[in-house]
This record gives sequence, C-alpha cells and structure tokens, in this order.
Amino acid sequence: MSLNIAYYGVPGSFSEQALLDYFPNNVNPINNEKFEGVFKELEKDDVHYGVVPIENSSTGPVSEIYDLLNTYPYHIVGEVFVKVEHHLLATKDATLESIQEVYSHPQAFEQCRPFLDQYNWSIVPHFSTASSAEHVKNSNNPKIASISSKKAAELYGLQVLAPNINYNTTNTTRFIILGKSHKINSSCNKISVVFTTEHKAGALYSALKSFSEYNINMLKIESRPVVHTPWQYYFYIDFEGNLDNPSIKKAINSMENDCVYFKLLGNYKSATL
Amino acid sequence: MSLNIAYYGVPGSFSEQALLDYFPNNVNPINNEKFEGVFKELEKDDVHYGVVPIENSSTGPVSEIYDLLNTYPYHIVGEVFVKVEHHLLATKDATLESIQEVYSHPQAFEQCRPFLDQYNWSIVPHFSTASSAEHVKNSNNPKIASISSKKAAELYGLQVLAPNINYNTTNTTRFIILGKSHKINSSCNKISVVFTTEHKAGALYSALKSFSEYNINMLKIESRPVVHTPWQYYFYIDFEGNLDNPSIKKAINSMENDCVYFKLLGNYKSATL
Repeated sequence: MSLNIAYYGVPGSFSEQALLDYFPNNVNPINNEKFEGVFKELEKDDVHYGVVPIENSSTGPVSEIYDLLNTYPYHIVGEVFVKVEHHLLATKDATLESIQEVYSHPQAFEQCRPFLDQYNWSIVPHFSTASSAEHVKNSNNPKIASISSKKAAELYGLQVLAPNINYNTTNTTRFIILGKSHKINSSCNKISVVFTTEHKAGALYSALKSFSEYNINMLKIESRPVVHTPWQYYFYIDFEGNLDNPSIKKAINSMENDCVYFKLLGNYKSATL
Repeated sequence: MSLNIAYYGVPGSFSEQALLDYFPNNVNPINNEKFEGVFKELEKDDVHYGVVPIENSSTGPVSEIYDLLNTYPYHIVGEVFVKVEHHLLATKDATLESIQEVYSHPQAFEQCRPFLDQYNWSIVPHFSTASSAEHVKNSNNPKIASISSKKAAELYGLQVLAPNINYNTTNTTRFIILGKSHKINSSCNKISVVFTTEHKAGALYSALKSFSEYNINMLKIESRPVVHTPWQYYFYIDFEGNLDNPSIKKAINSMENDCVYFKLLGNYKSATL
C-alpha cells in the first residue's frame, strides 16, 4: 500500500523535496497551496501524513505553522532538513539585462537580498518559489524571472540565469512530518510542547525550571500571540529527550502543573544537517 | 525647532499614526517604504527619531525589525500602541459584487481571513495597507479593492465598501521609537535586551535565572536565528524595570556574565492599551 501524504506548495517546492527525502518509497504526494490546507487534508481518512516547513535557519519560524499546530489535533512525528539553494530562473531567451521584474516568496527575497540589491528590478511577492517559476513559464516573457529551486527549473523548462544567489550557503529549512497519532520509539530524541503561563512575575521562569532541575537541554523557544488577549503568549519549546525516560516524564508532569495550558506536540527523531 | 522623524510606510500608514500619537506637535515626518530605510535615515545628523512596528497582538512579531535592532546601533526610547481597524476600500463606483482582486499587506490578509473567506477574490500581496489604497486610487478600477485604514480612505478619496473587517476587535500593533542615545528617566519601566548563550544543556535557563532571583517580571521572549549558524538563536527579552534600580543593575550584570553576547536595547516607558 502506498502512503497518501499532503505537502505544502506545488510540485517542485522544497516541501515536496522534504517529503521525498523522508518517505523515499511508495508515496502518493498530494499538494496544497495553503499551510492550513495541508492540515485540512489530514482530516480525510485516507491521508496518512502531512509535510510543512516550520523554520528556516536564516529567516526564522514560519509563524502560521506554529499557530496551526496548536489549533489542529495532529502530532509531530518526524523532521527533515532541506538545504535551500536559490537560483534566478527565466525563459530561454532572457538575459540579466532583459529582466525587469522578479517573482518569488517573500522569504526568498530576504535570503537573496545582497544579490537583488545589485539590480533595479521590481520585486513581486508570490505564493511560493515554485509557483513563481510556474508563473514565469506561463507568461513566457523575457522581462520576468523567478527565484526558485533547481527542481523547479527542470519541471518548468526554465534556464538558470544566475545560480546559488542566496547569500548564506548554510541556509537550511526544517520541515516537520505531521501524523494522526504519536509514533514514539527508542530512536525519538526530541520533544516539542506548547504552553501558556499565568501573567505574573516569574511565571515563565517557573514553567522552565524543570529543564534545569532535570538537566534537560532546551533547543528552542518560540512565542506566538494569544490572539484575543493582547501581549499574552503561547510558548513553544523544543528540548532533547524521550518520553520513556523517567526524568523526562517528571519534567513534563511538573510543566503541566505549572502551566495554565499545556500540550505535547510530539516526540520524534531529530534530523541532522 | 521641529523634530525630523523617519517612519515606515507611506502617508496614511499605521506607522504615521503611531508617530503623530507619540509626537503630537512640531514634527516633520519622513516616510520610508523599507524597514531598513528607517534605520538608514537615522544615520543622517538631522534625523532625530525613527518609528517602526515591532509586534501585532494577533499575528506576532515583525521579525525583520528584531534583526535590525541587533544590527544597527540605535536604542528603543519609547513605545506606542495603535489599534488596528481594517476596512475594505474601493473607488466610488465599486460594489462588493464588482470586486475581483484585493490588495494589501500579507499581515492584513491574515487579520481579515474570515471576511475574505466569504468571497472568491484574488488576494494580491502589496507593500503596505496604505500603498494598496494608493494603488486602488491610481488604477481607478472598480474591480479592485484594498484593505487599509480609514485614514488611507480619506487620503486617497476611496469609499469604505465594508468597515471593520478584521476578525479580532482587540487587534493592536505595538510601535517602537528609535533614538540615537538612551533616554532614561524615572518614568521608564520597561527594558529590552538581546543575547546569545552557549549551545549547551541549561544555558538559556541559566541566562534567565536572574529574573527569578531578583523577582523581575519577564514580559516577552522572542528568538531569532543566528544567520550563519543553523539552529542557534538570539533571544530578545522584554522585562519590567528601571536601570536605576539596584536589583535591575545586578540582574543585568549577571545576565551579561552568563551570555556569550549581550546588548541593552533600551529602557523606556511602557505604553498602555
């Protein structure tokens, strides 16, 4: 049986690449052009997993994904890193001199800022790096270019006008694998949780004290607004550990007691660069 | 003498409103359509302050501003809240039925998602809510609308086709006032810092221990990537206090000792809703 897996974006996107890296065999990828669309696909009985970007090493979190993780009942069951290499793509007859407008996702513009600053091109935000390539192909206009992946160049038959234009060569995006139930085994070494604390002096610090008490390595802390209560936050924390470890169990119990709201997002195997 | 003050966006933007709320008299506002442009304006001797958005109560931080605060040598000398009320604007002859495309800043689309979901309009990202209104005015096309402020409607002579379309009526944006030197007096009750820690178990927790020891109320924690070192972070923390208070001085000294890098961004008077 092949797995039906929803992913963000269009064919040729970095999310599709993440999906194929994580599930190399027997998969039926289902694309969706909205982050929330991937979560909605998971409501169908015959869709088994979802793949979405959560964080880029240069530009930071994909905030909407954090919000959706808290809203929907799905779990993080895995993660995968994809190295981001951006290229300037255009139709076969285009040259750097003919280009007047560049299409891409706003994060890609940020990642290629020093390259773009050399030119006087109009910068036009588009839904994704891959959809921008599709737009360039469909328009068949040598005045426009996109910032997209090499895979998108192949898929849409575009030429690479300028390769590797991202200023940071360590640039990597972290993708998460969404599942309908926790998949915890002995290889899982990373835990993600989300919580809110009371709005009083020291509340956040109290919630974090288990990490020090049990010598747990906190990997990341992210805050997102509680929408209808200005300047209150959900805290998303990633830390090292496996839920079968007694210290980890105690730390999580202690956090649950100290927080107004607490949710275990997942325990999974951390990816390596 | 009037103050020259740089702000983000175009006339009619929420940043201009924040500027005029904070400095009601004798100002010469200078607009810039890039976040970094406002910081660059401050390099001129005759530009005294800058005003930029840093956080929205529903959609979260303006990440680029956090990065710029760490890059440029300016200080946070004040903050101001502006209530965000979005309206659907169009030319005089437009109706809800004639609209096919809507222009606005991506954050405004997020803030008006339930309203937009009722229609089958194309969503076109633009630089700001105010520039979108200007675009609608210049195009003079009843098929297009913008999501912008009431002030933008007045400025560009557009009609309000649908008022107050943001789903969250508590929606507020926090703006910061940038200055060239710290302006600390007894009314200052909020401190902003940024630091990095060693990448080892408990390092972030150690850096935060002063808050508990000195009973200081941490208001906010934000993390931003260290660009060339994947999965390392700068932590931006806001907390209550005045730098003349001996406990606060001790807490800051302790943090400076525990961190690999530490920068005091400012001590200023917190705004109230």
